[in-house]
Amino acid sequence: MTDTVLSSATREVAIGFGRPFVMIGERINPTGRKLLAEEMKAGDFSRVEADAIAQVEAGAQMLDVNAGIPLADEPALLARAIELVQSVVDVPLAIDSSIIEALEAGIAVYQGKPLVNSVTGEDEVLERVLPLVAGAGAAVVAISNDDTGISEDPDVRFEVAKKIVQRAADHGIPAADVVVDPLVMPIGAMGTAGQQVFALVRRLREELKVNTTCGASNVSFGLPNRHAVTGTFLAMSISHGMTSAIMNPMHAEVKSAIQAADVLAGADTDCATWIREHRDPDAGGGARERRGGRRRRAG
Amino acid sequence: MTDTVLSSATREVAIGFGRPFVMIGERINPTGRKLLAEEMKAGDFSRVEADAIAQVEAGAQMLDVNAGIPLADEPALLARAIELVQSVVDVPLAIDSSIIEALEAGIAVYQGKPLVNSVTGEDEVLERVLPLVAGAGAAVVAISNDDTGISEDPDVRFEVAKKIVQRAADHGIPAADVVVDPLVMPIGAMGTAGQQVFALVRRLREELKVNTTCGASNVSFGLPNRHAVTGTFLAMSISHGMTSAIMNPMHAEVKSAIQAADVLAGADTDCATWIREHRDPDAGGGARERRGGRRRRAG
Repeated sequence: MTDTVLSSATREVAIGFGRPFVMIGERINPTGRKLLAEEMKAGDFSRVEADAIAQVEAGAQMLDVNAGIPLADEPALLARAIELVQSVVDVPLAIDSSIIEALEAGIAVYQGKPLVNSVTGEDEVLERVLPLVAGAGAAVVAISNDDTGISEDPDVRFEVAKKIVQRAADHGIPAADVVVDPLVMPIGAMGTAGQQVFALVRRLREELKVNTTCGASNVSFGLPNRHAVTGTFLAMSISHGMTSAIMNPMHAEVKSAIQAADVLAGADTDCATWIREHRDPDAGGGARERRGGRRRRAG
Repeated sequence: MTDTVLSSATREVAIGFGRPFVMIGERINPTGRKLLAEEMKAGDFSRVEADAIAQVEAGAQMLDVNAGIPLADEPALLARAIELVQSVVDVPLAIDSSIIEALEAGIAVYQGKPLVNSVTGEDEVLERVLPLVAGAGAAVVAISNDDTGISEDPDVRFEVAKKIVQRAADHGIPAADVVVDPLVMPIGAMGTAGQQVFALVRRLREELKVNTTCGASNVSFGLPNRHAVTGTFLAMSISHGMTSAIMNPMHAEVKSAIQAADVLAGADTDCATWIREHRDPDAGGGARERRGGRRRRAG
């Protein structure tokens, strides 16, 4: 059992093997959201607060907060966003930036134990981000690419993840506080993208014994009915050991696939969550069909 | 690559690794369908014909035909059903009965290479069914339970499957013509049912190199919104190597999960089938969300 425990001032969430999958809301991210970017830049965080509340109401156990806006003071914006989000919801946050100063500013104002998003296998990044993470007693998302870029070979990506876990240990950060992102490519552009992630997640869990996360919606980029593809991808990934994802909890189809996957992975004890959230008239009809199935063969 | 090739008089279907998942329609089965049972017993096969056509139109690449009606002449009914089904659809069939004489009668009238459903690991059953299968040059569904019943231990079920494959070989039936059913229990009754199947399917594929099938709807027995659970279960199973299932192709939700799983398992070249069947206005919206996701990290 590997548990990555994150916290806000008042609440703890554990990402771990055998536990329900942790949905990390991705919506608070101005990348590609022009209106949100303009509002944040102008100091209007009302949409950030609304997105925080809506995602938690939709079931997100954590939220990712990103303030990456070109030509803006990202450190100040990220710190402000984190303060405001923590003032309206009590879930732990992922502090998301590719700029070290922004991570620093976010960590400085954060109440609890955050998930720092992210560090890569690039030596310069490792040496700047890991001390920050260690100093804050935080956990970190480790993205399995390095100076050589992103390999299509899952074994190479595994070695990068292994290197990050080892470097983290050198800084006193336990493997349980390193959540590896195997990197999810659009399946429409790379037909092996799914199989790569499934194989990598299994090795990360069995050999490195680390928790995993990913930017899930990316897998369905460019495809029609993409939420069905994203939800199915997450369910398949969960069956290979993925324990969290940065995704949009507002899509009922994706959330339902995750909840069903928790049931089938044995992480929803007595199917309690599924039954509570999905109880409906179909349950009766279900019994009829079941007898029409092959259950008798098991008798 | 292990291909199990089945045929009708005019059409071949291959169940195999890396190929699109094969949906075997389960509807033609009087078990638990009182009206259908009464009609078949009275010699009225109109519903059988309608179910055959509807399932193939819904995308079933094969159909399972069962005529198990208490106190009826099952051999005669099964033979008649198979003749009629082959007269209205051209997909290969699974001849489904637990009564040897019925399998014999079905095989006698069948045109092509059928999937005989099924043989268990029980010695008496093996010695009666395998010669039939070998004599007909057919393929067979091997159910991984034996005289000791159904073990909850996937390793025991694996050994039963291995024994059946070996016995089949003794009768001249190649492993490629043995499709193993790992046995799917209701997840609501056994929380480990999913994990058992995933682990077993992986071993069956990696070590025995056989194709697999299952009675999928059984997994969601008794649960609300059961089609979502069944579809998610099949998607997860596909990611571990399951290559076919006896299921209801009329449920769009289950079919969609299978199609998405084919995409993510790399079995839908260029996502051609998915794009053809799911092209819709959401695709555009998808692009926006993707930019809001973590794609940039991969850049």
